[in-house]
Formats: sequence, C-alpha cells, structure tokens
Amino acid sequence: MAIEVYWVSGSPFSWRVMLALEVKGLPYQAHLLEMSKRQHKTPEFLAINPRGEVPALRDGEVVVAESIAILAYLDRRYPEPPLFGRTPAEAAAIWQEVMQGALHVDRFEDFILPLYFGEVAAKEAEVKQAIPRIRAELDRLEKTLTDRAWLAGPALSAADLTVYPVIRSLLRAAEKPDAARFDHGFLPMAATWPNVVRWMGAVEALPGYDRTFPPHWRG
Amino acid sequence: MAIEVYWVSGSPFSWRVMLALEVKGLPYQAHLLEMSKRQHKTPEFLAINPRGEVPALRDGEVVVAESIAILAYLDRRYPEPPLFGRTPAEAAAIWQEVMQGALHVDRFEDFILPLYFGEVAAKEAEVKQAIPRIRAELDRLEKTLTDRAWLAGPALSAADLTVYPVIRSLLRAAEKPDAARFDHGFLPMAATWPNVVRWMGAVEALPGYDRTFPPHWRG
Repeated sequence: MAIEVYWVSGSPFSWRVMLALEVKGLPYQAHLLEMSKRQHKTPEFLAINPRGEVPALRDGEVVVAESIAILAYLDRRYPEPPLFGRTPAEAAAIWQEVMQGALHVDRFEDFILPLYFGEVAAKEAEVKQAIPRIRAELDRLEKTLTDRAWLAGPALSAADLTVYPVIRSLLRAAEKPDAARFDHGFLPMAATWPNVVRWMGAVEALPGYDRTFPPHWRG
Repeated sequence: MAIEVYWVSGSPFSWRVMLALEVKGLPYQAHLLEMSKRQHKTPEFLAINPRGEVPALRDGEVVVAESIAILAYLDRRYPEPPLFGRTPAEAAAIWQEVMQGALHVDRFEDFILPLYFGEVAAKEAEVKQAIPRIRAELDRLEKTLTDRAWLAGPALSAADLTVYPVIRSLLRAAEKPDAARFDHGFLPMAATWPNVVRWMGAVEALPGYDRTFPPHWRG
C-alpha cells in the first residue's frame, strides 16, 4: 500500500513533505485538498487530522500530521538517504536549523498570507512589522550559507526541506502587485542574499522537484 | 567532560532539557543564567547561541540551542531510555505530540508572560483572547490522556517533557493575584481536567524531578 499524503497547493508545510518523499524516492499517492471547497474540514479528513490542517500522511497503520513530525517519521521508517544526518553531531546541527525554521522562518507568514489573501490594507501594521524580522532572518540564512552548500552542512537535510518552501512563498508574495506599497527590499533577492538564491537553485535542481511545485502557481 | 546546559529558572523551554537529562540519568553541569543581569546576552553566551536564548547545550564538540533540537540530539547520542520511541510508529505518535506542543501549547505564553511580568493591564486583550484557545488545548490533552498514562502512549516520551513545563507554568500564572481579573476557569485544574492533573503528578514523581524545579519558585 502506497504512502498517502494530504496536501494543499501552495502550503509550504505540505511542500516540505512532498520534497521529502521525492528525496527519499518513495512512491506516494497525493490527495490534493481544495481549501475553497473546505475539503480540509470534511469528516473524512478530520478523522485523519482532527485539527483539519495539512499536511497529513498515512502509511499503512501509521497516521501522522504536522510537517516536521512527518519528516521525522519518514526518516525513521525509511532511513536512506538520511534527512537528519548520520551522526548525533549532524543531527544536532540539522535539528537546530529545522527548529529555527519552524519557530522563526514560519513567521514569514505574517507578510505572506495578507498578500496571498488580499488583506494588506486590513493588516498593514502586521505586514510592516514583519519586514525587518524577515530581513534579519534572511541575513542569518545568508551568513549560514556562506561556506556551505546546504543549510546544516555539506549534505541536503530536513533543514533545507523545512526552510525552502517558506522562502519560495516569500518570493511569490513579494512579487504580488500589492507588495509594492511596502518598502520590503526583498526583490531582486539575489542583490542582497546571493547565497540564499544559489541555495534555492540547488533545491530546485533536485530530481522530483517539479512534481512538488504548487500546481496553481504554474503558468 | 560533562554535558553543560545553560538555562533560566522558570523557562519552560529550559525545563524540558533538564527533565530529559534527568530521565536519561546523564551527569551535567547546569549554568543558571540570570536574565535580570542580562547573562543571556553576554559575549560568552552569544558565542554559544547567537540568538541569546535558553536553553543551550554543549556536549564536547557539539553545541545545540533550542529545546526540541536538544531533546532530539540527546536521544540520538544517548538512546536509553528512548524519548522518541523504539519504532517508527512510536516516533510518529511522539513527534506529532511534540510538535503540537511546540506550535500550540507554547502559545500559552500569551497568557503566562503578562502575568509573570505584571503586564496584564497593558496586554488585557491578548490575555483574554488566549483563554479560550488554552481551554480548547487543555480539553484536547484531557481527551488524549483518557486511555493512556503518558501523552504519546504507554511510555514516558519527549512529548511529556515538552508539554509538562508549559502546563505547570500556566498553573503558576493562574495562581497570581492579577489572574483573578480574568474569567479563565483554570483553577482548580482537577475539576475540569482530571486526567491532565493525574499526568502532571506522574511527571512530578519522576526521579530527579526535584532537581529540575525552578529554584526561584520554591518557598
């Protein structure tokens, strides 16, 4: 029985899991839920995740929700190639970056979501407040990527899969016409954060990346 | 060389790590930082964690900050007794509860911190908004603990060590005189959430628990 994954197009949290499945070369059946049709709140999906949030994954008897939890599960069940390192020291570096992603980079949503949902006028103060925080975090990532190919060392890891989808979503949000009212300075990203852009290119060159790209962003 | 841990008395994030070290029976040297003296912002500590946040841990060559990352590292380096399960299925259940803790239970701070720091007047709206969210989360934990001794199954795990310190901090905050201005209904906790209180007692009965109790809460 193939792994089943429940996801939403453009959800950075879902994207992490899709990338992990591709990196591990695991066959999976993807169930694309449409939030506009409230498919994440049906009784069928709430039986899988009572919070009604994506991503969620079913693998035989195991059901697990929340993106980081899913990455940790997949790595225990299917260890190759490792997403959390081969040694405790590697695991420490990776987990630290993963949790910085989950706690700090995920807060980029304060900028991203109002732009996605046309709410910049109502949430102008929150969006403005988010900008310096995001710039500081991009500066930190830029510095981290100075002397290494991937966020937590010389090998691709769960840290890259955690952080990339949020940065890519930031880029998309910054390109929205509504973003022009803010002095965010995110574009062109390569002008200020060239290492980050180089690293994004490396993620985008992963085999299977195209299959994970949000379908509604195409064209 | 003993493990070194940098912590702050009463920080639920630090408390997780202290509990993990006790559960694993690891010798450690604890450096208690005083925030009032800004000891978390000294050059020495910023060299360990540039964010200037506790907890942080040094174990020989390995330096790792952020509580969940530290738990994950300790379990890789010192596997017994396991904090993240013995099988992938157990790991899935544990990681799901750990991340629900980090993403939802940690937000109890919106209630806790204003009470700790005497800021309830300035932050009355945020505190009020947090109450129904906290009650819903306690209801979820109560239900989870209906048919099991520990949060993620029959054995103590990282989930318990993640969630307990925040619930215990909530209790302390709710007991502050300033909390009486809110209709929070958190006290007595056993009246509404008896399973949660029973589970808290089980954590408090762990060998070594007393050594982890915030020193400035005593007496």
